[in-house]
Amino acid sequence: MSDFSQELKPADPQGPSILAQERAGSDVNIDQLAHHLLHRGDFLKRQKKILSVLEKRPYFCKKNQLNLARPDRYHLGLARAKELRRLSLQHGWDIDDYKMADYLTDEMAPYALQTVMFATSIREQCNDEQRAYWLPKVENWEVIGCYGQTELGHGSNVKGIECEARWNPKSKDFTIHSPTLTASKWWNGALGRTANHAIVVAQLMLPDQKTGKYKSHGPHQFIVQIRDMKTNKPLEGIVIGDIGPKYGYTAMDNGYMLFKNLRVPHSALLSRYSGVDSESGMYIKPKNQALVYGSLTYVRAQIIMHARLVLARACTVSLRYTSIRRQFADRDAKGSAPEQAVLNYPTVQIRLLPLLATTYALHYTGEAMFKLYWQTRADIEKNGDDSGLAEMHAASSGLKSLCTILAADGIETCRRAMGGHGFGGGSGMIPLNNDYLSKPTVEGDNWMITQQTASYLIKRMQTATKDQYPSNTESIDGQFRLFLQNKQSSKTYDIYNNESDIVTAFQHRVSFLSYQAYEARIEKKQPWTSLMISLHRLSRAFSESLLVTNFHRAIFESTPDPPLDKATHNIMKTLFRLFALSTIDFQSTEFILSGALAPSQLRDLTPTIQQLMAEIRPHAIRLVDAWSIPDYLLESALGRHDGDVYNALWRKAHLENPLNLQTFNPDWKTEEIIMGEGEETARQRIEALALGVEGHEQRGDLWRAKL
Amino acid sequence: MSDFSQELKPADPQGPSILAQERAGSDVNIDQLAHHLLHRGDFLKRQKKILSVLEKRPYFCKKNQLNLARPDRYHLGLARAKELRRLSLQHGWDIDDYKMADYLTDEMAPYALQTVMFATSIREQCNDEQRAYWLPKVENWEVIGCYGQTELGHGSNVKGIECEARWNPKSKDFTIHSPTLTASKWWNGALGRTANHAIVVAQLMLPDQKTGKYKSHGPHQFIVQIRDMKTNKPLEGIVIGDIGPKYGYTAMDNGYMLFKNLRVPHSALLSRYSGVDSESGMYIKPKNQALVYGSLTYVRAQIIMHARLVLARACTVSLRYTSIRRQFADRDAKGSAPEQAVLNYPTVQIRLLPLLATTYALHYTGEAMFKLYWQTRADIEKNGDDSGLAEMHAASSGLKSLCTILAADGIETCRRAMGGHGFGGGSGMIPLNNDYLSKPTVEGDNWMITQQTASYLIKRMQTATKDQYPSNTESIDGQFRLFLQNKQSSKTYDIYNNESDIVTAFQHRVSFLSYQAYEARIEKKQPWTSLMISLHRLSRAFSESLLVTNFHRAIFESTPDPPLDKATHNIMKTLFRLFALSTIDFQSTEFILSGALAPSQLRDLTPTIQQLMAEIRPHAIRLVDAWSIPDYLLESALGRHDGDVYNALWRKAHLENPLNLQTFNPDWKTEEIIMGEGEETARQRIEALALGVEGHEQRGDLWRAKL
Repeated sequence: MSDFSQELKPADPQGPSILAQERAGSDVNIDQLAHHLLHRGDFLKRQKKILSVLEKRPYFCKKNQLNLARPDRYHLGLARAKELRRLSLQHGWDIDDYKMADYLTDEMAPYALQTVMFATSIREQCNDEQRAYWLPKVENWEVIGCYGQTELGHGSNVKGIECEARWNPKSKDFTIHSPTLTASKWWNGALGRTANHAIVVAQLMLPDQKTGKYKSHGPHQFIVQIRDMKTNKPLEGIVIGDIGPKYGYTAMDNGYMLFKNLRVPHSALLSRYSGVDSESGMYIKPKNQALVYGSLTYVRAQIIMHARLVLARACTVSLRYTSIRRQFADRDAKGSAPEQAVLNYPTVQIRLLPLLATTYALHYTGEAMFKLYWQTRADIEKNGDDSGLAEMHAASSGLKSLCTILAADGIETCRRAMGGHGFGGGSGMIPLNNDYLSKPTVEGDNWMITQQTASYLIKRMQTATKDQYPSNTESIDGQFRLFLQNKQSSKTYDIYNNESDIVTAFQHRVSFLSYQAYEARIEKKQPWTSLMISLHRLSRAFSESLLVTNFHRAIFESTPDPPLDKATHNIMKTLFRLFALSTIDFQSTEFILSGALAPSQLRDLTPTIQQLMAEIRPHAIRLVDAWSIPDYLLESALGRHDGDVYNALWRKAHLENPLNLQTFNPDWKTEEIIMGEGEETARQRIEALALGVEGHEQRGDLWRAKL
Repeated sequence: MSDFSQELKPADPQGPSILAQERAGSDVNIDQLAHHLLHRGDFLKRQKKILSVLEKRPYFCKKNQLNLARPDRYHLGLARAKELRRLSLQHGWDIDDYKMADYLTDEMAPYALQTVMFATSIREQCNDEQRAYWLPKVENWEVIGCYGQTELGHGSNVKGIECEARWNPKSKDFTIHSPTLTASKWWNGALGRTANHAIVVAQLMLPDQKTGKYKSHGPHQFIVQIRDMKTNKPLEGIVIGDIGPKYGYTAMDNGYMLFKNLRVPHSALLSRYSGVDSESGMYIKPKNQALVYGSLTYVRAQIIMHARLVLARACTVSLRYTSIRRQFADRDAKGSAPEQAVLNYPTVQIRLLPLLATTYALHYTGEAMFKLYWQTRADIEKNGDDSGLAEMHAASSGLKSLCTILAADGIETCRRAMGGHGFGGGSGMIPLNNDYLSKPTVEGDNWMITQQTASYLIKRMQTATKDQYPSNTESIDGQFRLFLQNKQSSKTYDIYNNESDIVTAFQHRVSFLSYQAYEARIEKKQPWTSLMISLHRLSRAFSESLLVTNFHRAIFESTPDPPLDKATHNIMKTLFRLFALSTIDFQSTEFILSGALAPSQLRDLTPTIQQLMAEIRPHAIRLVDAWSIPDYLLESALGRHDGDVYNALWRKAHLENPLNLQTFNPDWKTEEIIMGEGEETARQRIEALALGVEGHEQRGDLWRAKL
């Protein structure tokens, strides 16, 4: 067949000329804004440096990923993980370089736990002796580690895990044991096929000094060798495997693990803060539990910063594509009018532009959380002042929940806004969506952890009711006291003409809902469970208020840092308004019921939002360009920086699709599938595909012996 | 390694005993309710019959699907499609049996277009002669067909497609040609690798009788042989291929196709309603365009009925699992209390139980739409009365948009409510989500088609303003006239104590929004584009009103048909209230602004919803059981009918995961991946995985010659 497709080009206007025009029509200073957003840790320079290495390596080519079977994705993931380690040494990468490589590779791979949960546990939970022994092995990657906390039966409720570590007073060691099937470790990354060592979280069981009866002192961390260092087979007394395919994380071997009376030495218990006295068998209580919360907050600040980049990626793809894609002429146009860019339709704008504004909102709160974390940590380490910890923890819980929801739902909104091509592999949205959908659940389920935020706010409100004098109104206490003093006032806020009124309206809503929760729980003593829905909403209100407050502070209350041109600064102000008003639109009932807004004020909401979107529309492309997401990371025909969408889709389909290498037999009367392979070959091949492991077994492959 | 896992069982209480208790605690009559919901076309009997055939066939085993590479999924899909055809003949299945097999197989497979779009076009668009020639070939599956309408550059705007069919007056035939790359057919199912014939939609270009200049008469359907019947290679002048991996539809070969001056005979143009006079070259105009809309409505009624089953499936999995899954004890419990079923938490109920109510709401509207379709069709065929067509079309557009959004978002809500295990392959939610996410886009993009609904409502309101006498208040005209007469009244509706007030509140909101849209468009002559957001919201309001009205009619205004016990009937009433009040909660601004509700009425919304959920909670399992989704279709460890969740998850991971057949080399210093394969083998293998087709090319496989 003659391939005449190379003679053809897409119908005019061409994507690249459209994007060039879009960029020419805006005065947003991309480089300056990019620096403003990404100056931390030399992000842009680092991205360029690492990109130039990865793009040349065949292992890091992403274009065939969606064609691969899940087991092959693990093979490739392990190969990439190893190569990243080798490249680190070869190029002298520091930890931030390594993280950048991980970000650009965009894959949760089998070494992902080594530098994070595994090394962090060793570093933070080991006593000095343990640290001296393990840390060099971990940092030189002589052992490959994982973190085994979650079990088949317990995730959120860590205290409920069933795996036990019993202290044997005579032999002065522990027995790690899984009493049930639900005690099996489950989900733990790198455990399934890779790691030879694990941090195992188990109930520390010590015999009562008098009765000898065992009692749990709660979950504790143990370091355990789980596989043979030569053969990589599980050690005797351990059953391990990979849990199988998941929604995302295709390259990661999330694992399961059962123990049958496995003996580990006294030194296996990580003993920096607590421990077991090997002579007396007595429990040594932890000294400072609070620091644990500190590092959780750090992880959550990272989650917010990650959420902004993930959402920026979805916005980059969808805004570039919808500004190129044309469909339908203006319905009111007379005569034959050209088709409109779909981004010109308000029904597309209302889905994408508030999300674009959200990327910026997330940014300023992520920045604020990082600053708060470092400051709180410094306060604790310098003078033991941990007063900031509770608020930081409460804020981080609510924000983790809200920000990951905004990003997760935002990705899908962006994908759908791209219509049919958004459903195709060329969108680049498939792995993004599939992987990110884990985030609302991991690191604290989004519906569960909001209770911590609400619980904190109820406590603060209770304090505020006892002391009516306003303190610093910037603090939550000050806000609450002000609210209590003015509870009878019917003042509403001028959200259309006054930005600080917007901030106050959000804060008023938080105070109102906190007071309701306080009344229900403290005064009326209502059951906690019955309040959960209100508590979740309170946490969301508080977190939205933080996003709005931090955005306002960064853009209206001080000179942007690093600085922005006036034109760019002005667009940031418009983005603030769009973010805040869209949020009000979505949550209007609470603004009405709290009295922050009069019902009649809602009438102007949609027209005002539409006006703000019209102002932002010409700058949309530059505003996503500033996020500096490289094409390599986007891996998207629709979202390419050059806008050459249709040629890229065509190449992907016509030149890079392995299914097109084979010719098939479409005739239902024969079982032959690939033309010419014959019926018997086809039948055996297809049955093996359908039956999988069972097919192996039927053919006598004694796979269980290989485990 | 000794595998001691078979000695273990999950911690108590066991899933099966939990589900048995759940079922014992409700008096919902499952069999009766199942018959009530699924009596049409003997659904339950048919399901049982077909299931017994499929479950025994190795090709239809689903458990390895998530492990397969995308090309292999196509191989398996084609093999299954062929087998379904053979089984149809062997067992004498009728078309409904075949559709049931398709539903249970739960896969969009390469023959999916044969009985639907391909056969329908032949049946409905061919003239008698064409039909006599083609229909037997299609019905005997001598040709395998697809439907080529959508192009790379145009989907929603069918009038904008670029593929051309030019009439050649001398040779009295057509030349089909793709003038640009964006004119390439794209997305067309079964085109990529399978079909040998296609319905090709192309601009019908006829020369002007005077000037000879070609002019388009709009898109028309042509039947074209595209591949050789022996070799299945594309014919000369055609470039075809599969477009590559997508979000879902893994087994389907959605294709692309370009034409280079392909000659097809005069008879290729399907000419039932329009055509070209082969002597004069004159266009023969279509007689009755309306019938096209009729069959679109039928497709959309099917979409609603499908949406209810899809959502029921997600509810089945999530409600069974969350009633089994235990996590945390009641926070207010004294002493050591047992962990709670997560479904007992209102924060889980608020996500799942309104969706359970939605499955029933969708059902009654699906039923109503089918009845309306058959009645309207009968009216047209009997006496040419097509007056019902416009309303039916408007309703079907809005409902398609709303119902597919409710189901698509609902699936993901169900998945997330299951926490970590919801992200795992054992949830059964991965293919469900991935495939269903196409629905908000296909058969009319959900944001675009709502304009048709709004446009209709504006027209009706315009009519109503001219004629103030109320007619039948059941009709939209009657509602509008009543609204106009009482526009000044400040009556609100008692949604907590009076179910028909709920219905009226929904209808009032529609009238209010319709009047606003009418004012903006007709009186103030505002640009259509500027109104799009409001129009979309109007369509949603109208569609929600239909769901509420039809649900109310079926449960409150008449005896349920087929009949229901009093206990079951009562629960349906509670489900109605929950559906309606949850919908109001989500859209409260519009109810306030329209004056249907006073702001103060919103205060009781959440407590009332929580109360309704508490009433439904004990019946949740029986209410999903009634949907009769077989385990084979669920393909879910979490959603199994017997509740044996943890053993099933374990088996899936430990015994059915092919990745566990291999042992890997975790040492980063070597490139070896599978233990013992050696570095060089591994490197070549991994590069081929990463590079895909490019890897084939580098190794000298001249794959393009094979195309």
